[in-house]
Parts: sequence; structure tokens; C-alpha cells
Amino acid sequence: MRTYDIRCKIGLRIKELRMDQGLSQEAFANLIGMSRSYFGEVETGRRNVAAINLEKIVKGLGITLEEFFHSDLFID
Amino acid sequence: MRTYDIRCKIGLRIKELRMDQGLSQEAFANLIGMSRSYFGEVETGRRNVAAINLEKIVKGLGITLEEFFHSDLFID
Repeated sequence: MRTYDIRCKIGLRIKELRMDQGLSQEAFANLIGMSRSYFGEVETGRRNVAAINLEKIVKGLGITLEEFFHSDLFID
Repeated sequence: MRTYDIRCKIGLRIKELRMDQGLSQEAFANLIGMSRSYFGEVETGRRNVAAINLEKIVKGLGITLEEFFHSDLFID
């Protein structure tokens, strides 16, 4: 995993958790009041997402930031 | 804690961990190769820090992102 950028790791983790909820990118983005294109860029690792939007996404996933980062994805 | 912005919570958590290391803002910023003024703004909750810089700070603190967010500060 060492070669993955933090943007990609965050995106992969979001995707995993969003799919667990059975929601499309669009449905999830609507749920949290975020534009679908912005959310799609975060999920595909093309955005260096900042704290406020990361918190919004993580709350929408129904977990804490600690739980969000509890994943082998974030272990180098 | 509900009224605190995520920027403030992250800043307070950074400050707590930096002081545990016995380092000044300047010494810590130098250690991780970040400008002192930028780091100071993050630590005082005035910056909406993004993933790449947050990862750099957390690595400098010698912990994982999961450990960073393991704090009552982040529980609403």
C-alpha cells in the first residue's frame, strides 16, 4: 500500500463504505448535500479533500473519523 | 463539544500531541518540513487542512490517522 497516495486511500475507503450502504455515488452525494461531481472526484482520489468535507462524508457514512481510518488501507 | 468546528477539533488534537512531544510549533513544523505560519494556522483551527497535509502532520506525530482521531474531541 505504500505507493498509494492518501487521496486514493481515502477514496477507496469511501467507496467501500458507500457500497456497503447500497448507494450510488449520486444517491450518496444527494444524501449529504454535496455535488455529485465533487464527490466523484474525492472517491476516485482526484481531490485532496479537506477536513470539513471529509467530516461531512464520514458523517453521511454513519461512522466516526476514527472508524473511517480503521482500515488496512491506511497502514503503510 | 458539538459546537466546535472540525478545524478546531483537529487543531486542539494536534496541539495536545505536539506538546506531548515537548516540541514548539516552530520545532515541529521544521521537523515535518512545513512552514511555521501554515502549521500555526492549522493548529489554531484557522485552516481547513486537507488530506495530504493532515497525513504529513500525523506522521510527524508518530501515530496513525486512526490513532489521531481516537479522542473524545471528535465525539459529538
